[in-house]
Amino acid sequence: MNIDLNSDLGESLGAWRMGDDAAMLSLVSSANVACGFHAGDPAGILRTLRQAKERGVAIGAHVAYRDLVGFGRRNMDVESADLRADVIYQIGALKGLATAAGTTVRYVKPHGALYNTIAHDERQARDVIAAIREIDASLVLVALAGSPLLGWARDAGLRAVAEAFADRAYTPNGTLVSRREPGAVLHDAEEVAARMLRLASEGVVTAIDGSSVRIEAESVCVHGDSPGAVEMARRVRALLEQSGVAIRSFVDAA
Amino acid sequence: MNIDLNSDLGESLGAWRMGDDAAMLSLVSSANVACGFHAGDPAGILRTLRQAKERGVAIGAHVAYRDLVGFGRRNMDVESADLRADVIYQIGALKGLATAAGTTVRYVKPHGALYNTIAHDERQARDVIAAIREIDASLVLVALAGSPLLGWARDAGLRAVAEAFADRAYTPNGTLVSRREPGAVLHDAEEVAARMLRLASEGVVTAIDGSSVRIEAESVCVHGDSPGAVEMARRVRALLEQSGVAIRSFVDAA
Amino acid sequence: MNIDLNSDLGESLGAWRMGDDAAMLSLVSSANVACGFHAGDPAGILRTLRQAKERGVAIGAHVAYRDLVGFGRRNMDVESADLRADVIYQIGALKGLATAAGTTVRYVKPHGALYNTIAHDERQARDVIAAIREIDASLVLVALAGSPLLGWARDAGLRAVAEAFADRAYTPNGTLVSRREPGAVLHDAEEVAARMLRLASEGVVTAIDGSSVRIEAESVCVHGDSPGAVEMARRVRALLEQSGVAIRSFVDAA
Amino acid sequence: MNIDLNSDLGESLGAWRMGDDAAMLSLVSSANVACGFHAGDPAGILRTLRQAKERGVAIGAHVAYRDLVGFGRRNMDVESADLRADVIYQIGALKGLATAAGTTVRYVKPHGALYNTIAHDERQARDVIAAIREIDASLVLVALAGSPLLGWARDAGLRAVAEAFADRAYTPNGTLVSRREPGAVLHDAEEVAARMLRLASEGVVTAIDGSSVRIEAESVCVHGDSPGAVEMARRVRALLEQSGVAIRSFVDAA
Repeated sequence: MNIDLNSDLGESLGAWRMGDDAAMLSLVSSANVACGFHAGDPAGILRTLRQAKERGVAIGAHVAYRDLVGFGRRNMDVESADLRADVIYQIGALKGLATAAGTTVRYVKPHGALYNTIAHDERQARDVIAAIREIDASLVLVALAGSPLLGWARDAGLRAVAEAFADRAYTPNGTLVSRREPGAVLHDAEEVAARMLRLASEGVVTAIDGSSVRIEAESVCVHGDSPGAVEMARRVRALLEQSGVAIRSFVDAA
Repeated sequence: MNIDLNSDLGESLGAWRMGDDAAMLSLVSSANVACGFHAGDPAGILRTLRQAKERGVAIGAHVAYRDLVGFGRRNMDVESADLRADVIYQIGALKGLATAAGTTVRYVKPHGALYNTIAHDERQARDVIAAIREIDASLVLVALAGSPLLGWARDAGLRAVAEAFADRAYTPNGTLVSRREPGAVLHDAEEVAARMLRLASEGVVTAIDGSSVRIEAESVCVHGDSPGAVEMARRVRALLEQSGVAIRSFVDAA
Repeated sequence: MNIDLNSDLGESLGAWRMGDDAAMLSLVSSANVACGFHAGDPAGILRTLRQAKERGVAIGAHVAYRDLVGFGRRNMDVESADLRADVIYQIGALKGLATAAGTTVRYVKPHGALYNTIAHDERQARDVIAAIREIDASLVLVALAGSPLLGWARDAGLRAVAEAFADRAYTPNGTLVSRREPGAVLHDAEEVAARMLRLASEGVVTAIDGSSVRIEAESVCVHGDSPGAVEMARRVRALLEQSGVAIRSFVDAA
Repeated sequence: MNIDLNSDLGESLGAWRMGDDAAMLSLVSSANVACGFHAGDPAGILRTLRQAKERGVAIGAHVAYRDLVGFGRRNMDVESADLRADVIYQIGALKGLATAAGTTVRYVKPHGALYNTIAHDERQARDVIAAIREIDASLVLVALAGSPLLGWARDAGLRAVAEAFADRAYTPNGTLVSRREPGAVLHDAEEVAARMLRLASEGVVTAIDGSSVRIEAESVCVHGDSPGAVEMARRVRALLEQSGVAIRSFVDAA
């Protein structure tokens, strides 16, 4: 029994720090590394890649809309020619830095508003899929569990991996409870760890109404942008390992 | 007898046009393509790369300081860790787009203030050289003819190609006449073409004082940022070809 | 009888030129000047302001989403706190440059996607209105003729001026024909001039189906981003003046 | 007896936090507020301005080179037309936000590399001085104690205020010990507080060689970018107040 833990890393920008990449790289098996459009400057990204390489953590391109001030969280209506080229540019840049760090980009996980949009918007989804295929069809796409994006990517010949969110509540249908609803975000580290153990071992989470819902997920996203978040990730990993679940990426690290 | 003609391309940005890439790609053998730091957005860069691929023009990464408003022409005191990672990032991004265009980046020509600085500043020169070696040691570095950069690059194991400027006057020592001096920039297309023919056939240009000076140059930079510039490039190419000088890049196109 | 002609100016960026500001400033009575978020660098904006001051042209702040690469034409889901502060920041910056040029910002005309969005989206409209009121309630808001934005602005105590587009077709309901429809954009300068004369003198334009439709408009937008556009603006102004319609801004120039 | 304490504030950017503005605004009498070129987004700047207004803290424009990734700390060779317009743009933007916050910008303190450059580089210094005069000649310029900039500004008709740095060592000549030298930065809060008390009461600091050196300074810069820095600022203020030195800005707050 095994599962992947992934986290968003490399999100500092020049003098601005974000998250504790060193701590998270000792906890996760996959690192979604910023590519400079929503976060990350080249020197900082390179430092994170070198640390990931040392730790044997698999590297993914955390591609995003071009929006530093909005941290890639704002919906943007980007035309296909631009979106495709923007995604290729970011993956290429990260590949270059990964080469310098002696490692390799193995997957792509879109960030923020782009992640949420392409889970359901077919036009932008197909642009991202085409971009990945044009630069490197061996890259795996990480997508929201239960979303149509998984099927679109697989139909296009990409390997697609479904992802669950450790600290988010689910509806009885297996979709995420909207952040605008009460109880959407979970804060208790023990509860979160227990939920993720159940997901890893049974493929099921307890929905917000108490029912059990099946979630297809090869990877679990954990956050590292606050000391509390790092502690929660540590607890998730510890319980999984104690319970015999191996933390292993869905790809080889390099 | 042959020589390379290179030009700066891919320098449009979103709604802003610069230069006539299609015209220039029919005249030059090497295209220095912007990488997004001083100019170029990913979709526009990709269009230029596709046209270059069609024309069989060799592609170089026109890396620069991160300065869109200043078009990379302003000196910036960038620390080594940043400069190295910035150069790797830009080359990687262009490599990614080149892959999508079915072609390959073959060389690096720094742009503007970075070009001028590393011709003589050893610290920044060694950072650029290290960056190239870290991402792809087979990339050729194009550098100012007569500059110490050529030696630094070769000592580090890179192939370095010396470049002359078609529309610039030279001192009797073989250095460029400063743009602040009268006569530094040549405007007569016939004169420029004749000078480049002499350079290609004899390895010599007439200096600003009328003397002859030997210039080691495998490549000649021509501009395309105005209709007059395109016309001058056309005249240079025509005279060279009429005189039996082949226009050929110093690298294979792809 | 009089009407205002306005145009988007100050849209160059560093080395990139856009439009012929000098030509347009001899044709229009109001200049929508870029504020740096979709276009315009401070030195270029200042040059345009100085020319506008010399010509006695009224100055408006052409505020936009923060999106240089997309030229402010892409819809962006900006939160209220950010949108309000972004608008204030841009108006303030232009006011500062206008002071240095010896003139004054008199109105606000949102640009591109922001213009289209707030014509109908009440949340973002109220953010822009609030921003204008917070920095200078004497500023006039220029808005799409027939749009609810005019009423929202007036209810909030702003003076709002309705605007028509010289080169756009109208539906029988007085709304713009979508750019995706055939015939949406008019290219014949004589026809456009005749239409604007009818609008200025009768308050009516011929709709795309041949019917006449009443348009409340104190200002007419003309473009200057190509030689053909400048020529069309010249023709509109000439016909209006020959026919006794004075070209006069809806505000005093300074 | 009184002295001003100033600190750099408003330096967060979107999702990235920097410093503890609320804490610092209870300690200082003057706030150097970022203007968006090296740090600060409009909504964050506006929040800081509102807090400053509540606390009665005087507001200065912390203008900088356009360099977010380098945090304005990298020397840049900016031409006069650009530098002047860039400074006007930033001051104007901050004035606009200050109006929305019900307060007023009272002074200008250049940031980082621009601060250091204009302390001695006459060309760039005169550009900054001219910019301030063009937008608002009543603005006070804060400059390095002992630098020629003070004289240049006063000759041009500006009020200029000299500034000392609480945590920096001084040479026997009254200049700052270079950060490259050992002992350049002081870390002991008690020592720093005692030095600033001596400066406020006697106009003298102990130089790095143990001698006493006279420093003309109406303002003292304290940092707030780490918990230790905030604590040091707290200690400086406490000792000054206990010793009967009033903490008061060199200008009225609004």
